[in-house]
Amino acid sequence: MASHDTITVTDYLLRRLESLGVRHIFGVPGDYNLKLLDTVIAHPGIEWVGTANELGAAYAVDGYARMTGFGALVTTFGVGELSAINGVAGGFAERVPMVHLAVGPAQEMERSGAILHHTTGDGDYERFARAHEQITCAQAVLRPGTAGAEIDRVLATALRESRPVYLRLPADVAAERIPAPTAPLPLPGAADVNPDSLAAFLDAAEQAVAEADSTAVLADFLADRFHARTELAEFLAASGFPVATLSTGKTVVDEQDPRFVGVYSGQFSDPRTRVAIDEAGVLIRVGVLLADTTSGGFSQGFDPEAGIDLGPYSAAVDGKRFDGVPMAAALAGLTRRLGTVPAPQRIPAAPAPVDRGGDEPLTQNYLWDAVAAAVRPWNTVVAEQGTSFFGIATRHLPTGARFIGQPLWGSIGYTLPALLGAQIADPTRRGVLLIGDGSAQLTIQELGTIARHGLTPVIILVNNDGYTVERAIHGKRAVYNDIAPWNWSAIPGALGASNALVLHARTAAELDHALAEAALATDRLVFLEVVTDIDDTPALLTGFAEGVGARNGSDS
Amino acid sequence: MASHDTITVTDYLLRRLESLGVRHIFGVPGDYNLKLLDTVIAHPGIEWVGTANELGAAYAVDGYARMTGFGALVTTFGVGELSAINGVAGGFAERVPMVHLAVGPAQEMERSGAILHHTTGDGDYERFARAHEQITCAQAVLRPGTAGAEIDRVLATALRESRPVYLRLPADVAAERIPAPTAPLPLPGAADVNPDSLAAFLDAAEQAVAEADSTAVLADFLADRFHARTELAEFLAASGFPVATLSTGKTVVDEQDPRFVGVYSGQFSDPRTRVAIDEAGVLIRVGVLLADTTSGGFSQGFDPEAGIDLGPYSAAVDGKRFDGVPMAAALAGLTRRLGTVPAPQRIPAAPAPVDRGGDEPLTQNYLWDAVAAAVRPWNTVVAEQGTSFFGIATRHLPTGARFIGQPLWGSIGYTLPALLGAQIADPTRRGVLLIGDGSAQLTIQELGTIARHGLTPVIILVNNDGYTVERAIHGKRAVYNDIAPWNWSAIPGALGASNALVLHARTAAELDHALAEAALATDRLVFLEVVTDIDDTPALLTGFAEGVGARNGSDS
Repeated sequence: MASHDTITVTDYLLRRLESLGVRHIFGVPGDYNLKLLDTVIAHPGIEWVGTANELGAAYAVDGYARMTGFGALVTTFGVGELSAINGVAGGFAERVPMVHLAVGPAQEMERSGAILHHTTGDGDYERFARAHEQITCAQAVLRPGTAGAEIDRVLATALRESRPVYLRLPADVAAERIPAPTAPLPLPGAADVNPDSLAAFLDAAEQAVAEADSTAVLADFLADRFHARTELAEFLAASGFPVATLSTGKTVVDEQDPRFVGVYSGQFSDPRTRVAIDEAGVLIRVGVLLADTTSGGFSQGFDPEAGIDLGPYSAAVDGKRFDGVPMAAALAGLTRRLGTVPAPQRIPAAPAPVDRGGDEPLTQNYLWDAVAAAVRPWNTVVAEQGTSFFGIATRHLPTGARFIGQPLWGSIGYTLPALLGAQIADPTRRGVLLIGDGSAQLTIQELGTIARHGLTPVIILVNNDGYTVERAIHGKRAVYNDIAPWNWSAIPGALGASNALVLHARTAAELDHALAEAALATDRLVFLEVVTDIDDTPALLTGFAEGVGARNGSDS
Repeated sequence: MASHDTITVTDYLLRRLESLGVRHIFGVPGDYNLKLLDTVIAHPGIEWVGTANELGAAYAVDGYARMTGFGALVTTFGVGELSAINGVAGGFAERVPMVHLAVGPAQEMERSGAILHHTTGDGDYERFARAHEQITCAQAVLRPGTAGAEIDRVLATALRESRPVYLRLPADVAAERIPAPTAPLPLPGAADVNPDSLAAFLDAAEQAVAEADSTAVLADFLADRFHARTELAEFLAASGFPVATLSTGKTVVDEQDPRFVGVYSGQFSDPRTRVAIDEAGVLIRVGVLLADTTSGGFSQGFDPEAGIDLGPYSAAVDGKRFDGVPMAAALAGLTRRLGTVPAPQRIPAAPAPVDRGGDEPLTQNYLWDAVAAAVRPWNTVVAEQGTSFFGIATRHLPTGARFIGQPLWGSIGYTLPALLGAQIADPTRRGVLLIGDGSAQLTIQELGTIARHGLTPVIILVNNDGYTVERAIHGKRAVYNDIAPWNWSAIPGALGASNALVLHARTAAELDHALAEAALATDRLVFLEVVTDIDDTPALLTGFAEGVGARNGSDS
């Protein structure tokens, strides 16, 4: 019997995904992928999560992958895959590993160039794969003879690059039988270490630290994406160096640790954060990418070419690069070498306690303090790239809390579906979504998907009459920054969340009360509409917005 | 003074768009495009229509362009343009001319490869333009020295190909001054005619008709897209030939004309339609593209290589091709040559009158008969590619009524925003949207945009518990064909249509009553939820679905 050695192409892929921790696949059905979905729903270890549309599915996969390490998206040819492409591109920019499987017409149709639905009517079946080449790090068209090897190649690349990959699957290939995998997927890791290079790096790093009068650490999202969180925490504990993160990397280190000096944003940083980072004798950067949104418009006070820089697979000391030095290995080595360095003297003050609110109208400043104070260690805070992100970025979250934002790609509408994905990944880790009214309109339908799955996040909807982040940049009262007025209280019920607890707050006291109610209502979705002034923005956004306006051209 | 000879790049583009009949530009603001939007809203002849998201904007532009001849979409770099790309691709497949203007970072940022928000973080600013090369027929990056010529080149190509084009505009270039246009845009038309070739074609066509015992006409959407509707109507009136359309071309000819024999769908056609087309001695095809969805799965009973075929700029007689013969010129020539041919004998019977309904549960068959009977000459019927499209396709609409569907691209969720675009194009031409619950969930937020603009269409929401079109193809009770259960009656109010007339119908009598109420409530948006059985499908869909299942691979 040879049959136990063969497996369908779909099962091959599902088995590989399971080995990467994938327990849920997101997407929207279309006639080309229906039979594949039969296999997915029949697969014991994997659950299908249908979303309202494909962009929502892609964002959900992104949120899921940030929590679990890998995500999977299934769409149909042309219409489905192109609807999802912006969500996949976000994963490419922000280094979120996932596979986008687009299921298309059978090979016979493709060979004849048949004018099928979801094609462009000209027999060219490769257009959408070529579009995906622009925003994925590996691609393949699955054919019976090569499907297994191609699946392994693209998944391994996704892991190595921590980025999305694309698979196009002709419908008839899904059920073709191919040899089952005989070895685990090759994962990036120990094999990437060049011991000589690592030792040379550690020598240089140790010398740089020894010669400097002080050392600080700046950590960012690549430390999360390249699986160096544990090694980073150990290094910080052993070395005692003060640490900041960029907002992209928020919660990659414990924000309650007394040595955490805050979220760094260049010239817009809190003074104690700025001093700790910009005036360090040597700065150790761990997985840092300086973007305009995260560096105060490139106003960092340190030389990005100097100091110690840890990248995914290489490191540098004062500009000298050492290959074969993966981030986690570099950190483990630094812990061994620098673990005895005495703790520096600069211990930051704890954040000021939040005053209880009164009947004054709610301000953004009060709002984000109160929200941050209400976050618990088991929460995942998801903040939309508007006032919500800029507001929460600077507040310290509890030990254990996770943070999801998208400040580099910055696609508004991302967070509601990302919340869905993060909650599906771990329903016991309650999500707290911070989102504005303008952003919520882009992807609101996935609130129905959240309700359908009985998930119980807290959604804080900031109703401030339109695109406040854009108003801060340009067009304060321009009509293009207005949005359609919705009746937000009616939204959860209309979209199927009839059991939701719907709350409102226009004053500080109402917010305090509502947050307390939300914390108690652990078994229900909570939808809290908070009203803030149309022009009220967090301090970090104010500074950022001025820089953006200038970089987009001289003002009129 | 030279200043009166120069204008900004944005004004150059707006002036060109105005000359093409563009009065509204759709899109979503983003910081890179805000200053350009200042120019748009200040431009007297053009209005800005902000939508809830970019895919909605693209679909709206498609609906607008189908009504007016050209559409314009403005998005922001990366996130905005990729969110819209599926809607632009639909225009590429279904030949809808439009421009997609994506406004990005200033040239200085681009040259330095700065890691800005909405980039992929690697300094490559061309990724999204390359993605758009796959689904537009011309592209340009606007630079001060060449912007005018490039705008003219891509717009002329859009008109000639009747397809979308793409412009990438660095934010700082928008305000650069360039020479104003000195001549109108070159439009396709008389210059494309080769008189000798046209005469030779007409000789051959005349002979083919003379030698045949009967002649029939099959018209399709390219007759609309290449501006040959008038010439087609004149030809039909003069020749007296019976005519059918494909569903893609529904209402390209008057469906109340006694010589209209119905919508042709290959083997699934009404017998009298099939006989008229498949048994014609010579078949004149006007702008026909045979797709699986429109040809009954390629079951046409005629030889697509034989007969007379009129394409956009060339024609053929029994496979012999004549270039330099634009469709409208070919039809005008045929009218002169064949206008005296006696009318054929096959005059079809008028459609059967609709019975008044009783208390029996509503069926799809009754529903589409009743809806078609309620359509008036000033309506634009927009039918989603599900049971709605297959149901209404075969019903005759009144003289003057227009029809919008998307059977080739077939992107579910298209029609609600397309209705927005069609209604903005002409608010006096009341839209009638036919859409299922599964499809409506994809793009429901644009209902808020419809309400915000005070538009008064009739929206008929077919609530049949999920993706019925997919159930018909595969997975009749599969979980992936279920959708989140929404409270549809609450949707209009939640999305800001507080003035909407919300109606329900579960029986035939209730439907009759509701349609009568909808017809009277001309000053309000009408939202009519009709409930049909989960498995009830129009006859045309049943046949189509079986073919699709077979083409997607052998059934298990």
